[in-house]
Amino acid sequence: MANVARHTGTRRRVLKTAARLFQRQGYAATGLNQVLAESGAPKGSLYFHFPGGKEQLAAESITISGTRAGEQMAAIVSAAEDPAAAFSGLASLFAANLSGSGFHDGCPVATVALEAAADSEAIRSCCESVYGTWAEGLSVALERWGVAPQDCLPVSELAISALQGAILLAKVRRDPTVLHSVARQLACQISRSIQAQRP
Amino acid sequence: MANVARHTGTRRRVLKTAARLFQRQGYAATGLNQVLAESGAPKGSLYFHFPGGKEQLAAESITISGTRAGEQMAAIVSAAEDPAAAFSGLASLFAANLSGSGFHDGCPVATVALEAAADSEAIRSCCESVYGTWAEGLSVALERWGVAPQDCLPVSELAISALQGAILLAKVRRDPTVLHSVARQLACQISRSIQAQRP
Repeated sequence: MANVARHTGTRRRVLKTAARLFQRQGYAATGLNQVLAESGAPKGSLYFHFPGGKEQLAAESITISGTRAGEQMAAIVSAAEDPAAAFSGLASLFAANLSGSGFHDGCPVATVALEAAADSEAIRSCCESVYGTWAEGLSVALERWGVAPQDCLPVSELAISALQGAILLAKVRRDPTVLHSVARQLACQISRSIQAQRP
Repeated sequence: MANVARHTGTRRRVLKTAARLFQRQGYAATGLNQVLAESGAPKGSLYFHFPGGKEQLAAESITISGTRAGEQMAAIVSAAEDPAAAFSGLASLFAANLSGSGFHDGCPVATVALEAAADSEAIRSCCESVYGTWAEGLSVALERWGVAPQDCLPVSELAISALQGAILLAKVRRDPTVLHSVARQLACQISRSIQAQRP
């Protein structure tokens, strides 16, 4: 039993360290030795827990950190009464990630996705699944706020895309202002389309 | 004179190769030896032309390929009569880059930006400048189509963000459909806001 608990603890620690490094440095810059050293995991434990090596480690840690970010986003969106409150909250979430990390951390998925999705089916499909879950969650909220049902998924994909791009712009500017501005624009455009289709 | 021409040719060849590799593989995965080998440049020429090493090479090649992409975008936007034509053309441009490269190439700037902007001031400021030029160009066109002057830059930043995010989503889906869908949504939202502010 103690053995099982130790194994589970090691696995969890390795994944947590890997998620942080992949988000911050990207896929190629993150070496397995660094993950081992920073997680304090015993040598040899890596291939025991992750026989698929770095690719498996990246895919699993993206799923975990992408799901966690999705849960934070869902909490903000489900508590919001309208698009303005929701996008303002989402912008603040990502702005805090950026500002709190010296503009290293933004989206936990995007850096590895752009680098490795074309070469690794395992990584690509995890990224697709994470973004798919985010878009579906937002789509449900859009319908609650009054967006026409057939428009909910396309508008949600516009919003997820715009937030991702705004994280990128904020990173290259070292300034989160653009995230708030893009969030306001999104809320404003979506509110206008809700009003336009009211009888 | 022959010497100068040879030097200029080598420099250009190295930059072209570097731009392709940085876009495709990212910053960390692209080694100077690979750039030298694939550009056929003589050993030693790299530090002669780029005394700042890999960082300088990345900054210069991002500026060149980002400027080139900006010119392609400007040609599409300036020929477009309305937002629908413009965003449809921009989506097709990026979709062709993705599909024509096995979904390796998308935006020439984004991968290196996400990886390296937080650690390299030289790279960060080049990326900022490229995206700034794109947003300003689109902003001018938005005013021509009838967007209220004070809204042009924020709407343009929304659009650049959304296109960047849609490239990311298209990459992880191995399917450019989302680029076209996000472009249609952008055009539709912007057209609606132009109509709303008409007297």
